[in-house]
Formats: sequence, C-alpha cells, structure tokens
Amino acid sequence: MKTHLECFQCFANQVLVASRLASKDEKLHKLAIQKVMAKLAELDTDLPPPAAGAFIYKTVREISGNFDPYADIKRESNEFAMSLYNDLKQQVESSQNPLKTAVILAAAGNIIDFGTGRTIHKKDTLDALEDALKNPPEGNIDRLCSAMKSAENILVLGDNAGEIVLDRLMIEALGRDKADIIYAVRGGPIINDALLEDAQYVGMENIARVVSNGSESPGVFLDDCSGEFKKIFKNADVIVSKGQGNFEALSDTDHDINFILRAKCPVVSRYLNVPEGTNLVIEKKGMELIM
Amino acid sequence: MKTHLECFQCFANQVLVASRLASKDEKLHKLAIQKVMAKLAELDTDLPPPAAGAFIYKTVREISGNFDPYADIKRESNEFAMSLYNDLKQQVESSQNPLKTAVILAAAGNIIDFGTGRTIHKKDTLDALEDALKNPPEGNIDRLCSAMKSAENILVLGDNAGEIVLDRLMIEALGRDKADIIYAVRGGPIINDALLEDAQYVGMENIARVVSNGSESPGVFLDDCSGEFKKIFKNADVIVSKGQGNFEALSDTDHDINFILRAKCPVVSRYLNVPEGTNLVIEKKGMELIM
Repeated sequence: MKTHLECFQCFANQVLVASRLASKDEKLHKLAIQKVMAKLAELDTDLPPPAAGAFIYKTVREISGNFDPYADIKRESNEFAMSLYNDLKQQVESSQNPLKTAVILAAAGNIIDFGTGRTIHKKDTLDALEDALKNPPEGNIDRLCSAMKSAENILVLGDNAGEIVLDRLMIEALGRDKADIIYAVRGGPIINDALLEDAQYVGMENIARVVSNGSESPGVFLDDCSGEFKKIFKNADVIVSKGQGNFEALSDTDHDINFILRAKCPVVSRYLNVPEGTNLVIEKKGMELIM
Repeated sequence: MKTHLECFQCFANQVLVASRLASKDEKLHKLAIQKVMAKLAELDTDLPPPAAGAFIYKTVREISGNFDPYADIKRESNEFAMSLYNDLKQQVESSQNPLKTAVILAAAGNIIDFGTGRTIHKKDTLDALEDALKNPPEGNIDRLCSAMKSAENILVLGDNAGEIVLDRLMIEALGRDKADIIYAVRGGPIINDALLEDAQYVGMENIARVVSNGSESPGVFLDDCSGEFKKIFKNADVIVSKGQGNFEALSDTDHDINFILRAKCPVVSRYLNVPEGTNLVIEKKGMELIM
C-alpha cells in the first residue's frame, strides 16, 4: 500500500505522541516533529506508510536518547496477555474448531497496537477478544486453517508485543512440529512491536524457531530486511502475516501471503472497504487480495 | 496564543482538505502538502497558529491556481444565514434583553468556520443557535453589553462568511449611530473568512463603516495588517473580536479586547480550559483573560 496524503496528519500525531513518551523535554518534542516535517516534505509516497514510520520513531529515539520509549508498554502488554493465556487456551481447546478459534483470537489481538498514536487499554483488548468470538473476522478462515495444516513449513510475521501471546495460541492450536514454524520479529525497537525478548518472554521459542527480520520498520518492508530474513521469506511455503503494519508493507508485493489483521485507521479501512475496527483474514495470491 | 505542537497535525489536514476543494488534481494536493511540510519544518512556533494558516491557504491558492476555493461555501453560508435573518431579528427584538440575545447568537454563529478542516452543515448552525439561547456563552455578557453601549466607538473584528449576519444583528441590537461602528474584514480570500463582498452582501455597510484589515491571515495578526488598519485598531475605544482565529492571533498581544468565540479545537479548548464547542465571551485587560 502506498502512503496516502491522509497519512501525513497521522505521522504528525505519531511523532508527537512518541516524543512525549520518550522525553519530558518539550524542546526535544519540537525538534523531533520538525525533523519529521522536513522528511515528509520530500517523502516518496510510493513507499508504504511503515517506511515513514521507521523514520519517525528513529528520529524520536535519536533526539530523545531513549532507545526504546515503548519498553514499559510492551512489558505490560505481554504480562497482561500472558495473564489471559490459561483461560484463552482452555477456550480454544474446548471449542469445536480449536485452530479456527485461535485464528479469530489472533486477529482480534492485533488491537494491541500503539502505532497510530493510539493508547490501548486492557478493557479494549478484552472487549475485542470477546467480540471477535461472536463476530468472526471477515474472510475465509477455514481456507487459512487448511493452508496452515497442509503447509510444508510456515513463516509467521509477528506484529506487536502482547498480541504475540495470541499468536502463540494459534501456533499451539496448529499442533505442528516446532521445526515447521518460523516466527519473525522486528530487528530493533519500533513502537510496541515485538522483539526477540518479547518472543522469549511469552515462550514462543518452545514452539517455533524465532528469527529477527533485521529491520526497525513497523511493518515487514522487505527492502529494509536482512539478507538472511529475505531468504527465509522467499523459501517459506506458507506466509502468515499478522497486523496492519505488515499488511501496509506487503500488500503491493507479488508474494502469496495470508494476512490476519484488524483495520485500525481510516486509510486502511477505506483501502479495504470495511469499517474501522474490522478484523480480517485476507488471502493474497500474487497481486490479488481475496477476502 | 503560540502555535502548539498538536497544531501540526491539524495543519496537515487543513492543507489536504483545502487542496481537494481547490482542485481535483491529486498531484497538486501532494505538491501543496509537501510544500507546507517544508514550511512547518522551520516554523516559528512563537507565532500564533493563523500565521501558519495564512501560509497554508496561500500555498493552496498558488499551487492550484484557484484564487478562492471557499467562494461557493461562503456564498451558501451568507445565503443561509440571511434566510434566518428575519426570524432571528424578531427573536432578538422580542427578547427581554435584545443586545444580550444578539451577543449570544453572535457567539454561536462562530460555528460557521471551515478553518480546522471541518465541514459545517446548516443543521449544525441551527442547532448551535438554538442551544446557545438555552445555554448562554461562558463569561460576563452583561459587562460586554455595557462596554459596547458606553463606548465612544467600537471596532468589530469579523471572522467568517455567514457568521457576519449574526454580527449584523448584534450591531443592530446595539442601536448605535453608523459613525460609531467600524466592521473589519480580511484583506483577501482565506478559508471561509468574510471579505468586503460578504459585508456588502449582508448589508453591513448600512450600519457600520466596513474596512479591510489588509491581511490574508485567518486571524487578525497585526504584524501582517495594513498601516491604515493598525491605526484604526490603535484608536478604537472598544474592540470586539469575533471568532477563534482572531482569538488565537490576538490573545498574546497587550491590547484590551473583548472576544466572542466558540472554542472549536482541542488546543484552544485546553488553552481556555473548556470543553470543545463552548461559546465564550472573554474580556482581555492587558495580558489578563477574564471569563
């Protein structure tokens, strides 16, 4: 997905929200916002929004000297999601179709995203999970479940801390050998996106091979990923991409990808022709999006 | 009022909304937004928001070649407000305190403002006028009425097309000689702000001396006004300033001013510590704001 002109106002908000989280010094907030404005003045809008996102949060990190402004938020999200784990696990296992239930929860879990300058409270997450079980995501969930079951190997592209616990449930419900699953996280701190330490904290390493994509973009923007990751990406039999940022970054590539996301901003919602807050399972075959 | 860092996201929205109104060519929208971003990268935030506003709309005019994108909106607003004139006039005249009633309506009339990227429908205006009569503006309206009655002469700083009809009602309710009232409009097209032609259309010239302030800023930003207007401003006995833009531009000056406005954005509402959508009558004595 290209960067839309509506994204500029969201970028201006994101740099401010992140700056305030990173530092109390208003002079630094202003420096950061004005540096981002200068970048936006020359932005290549053919690139997906996460390309600008990477610059925004890098600017905030550099100017504030705060390497990971969202560290506390990520810790809290992981702890909160892990506190739900046992109940959700039971709910999945006792359901008629455990994998399908887990996919539904994994889609709703994408609400735990601080990337559009939003703040997500525990109640938002609980409501989203409960609501998703009543109103499953748009798209063909059964097809996705079949694809995952019959795949030779699966690459799951993780998105946010906290949400990663729901991804763990989905992978567990799949019941595949650990050797068949690769779970990819970001290469460095970017918003509240999951890193290696988050995967470790939620026990992902027991059920999948966890890898870094080598990039600090808030979406798998392949140009910016490590050569090693690109090889993994290319060789994956089935790719499951979690979250809106990964969708934005990958929707215009020609790879076959299965997206699981929650549409959370006006631009993505309009692009997909769904109301904001819709959970989706989208099959991408070549350049075609199938919902 | 200085430019707050929250204003940047609003500026990014305003340039987009105005560009789309001025032209259908998306390339021009992008050119305009990126030119504004470059300006914001170096913006002196000690200046009030209307200083950036002037640049934003000038950029849209220059890039689109559309001299007055809001011309139709202004015409419609004037026509609509004039269609209400007779009923409102009767309501004012039959009320216990006609001038006070007219001030209340003039405050509510400031809703007709397209300056924060908003769209105002007829129903919004009708609701605001009706609501204001039930819930009068914050501040000391009686004091303002007395000040206007006993003033040697009054300078009214107009704001928006359409709203100007409510200002006419207020000036009429005051019942002063035409020679005692000066009504100032903008020096050139800026958003939906009233110009000489709007004053003429609503008959303002029959009850006041109408002058241009010589500036195309969406708020009376004195540095940018003509020498002639600055003399009028300096010599006025009582100044009545209509609207949020004029408040933003004049709140940090050391002049005595009576503001009548509707707080319509998060930044101004927080600055004044009132909910968004609050109508206000504010007395400014030197640097002090009295509500």
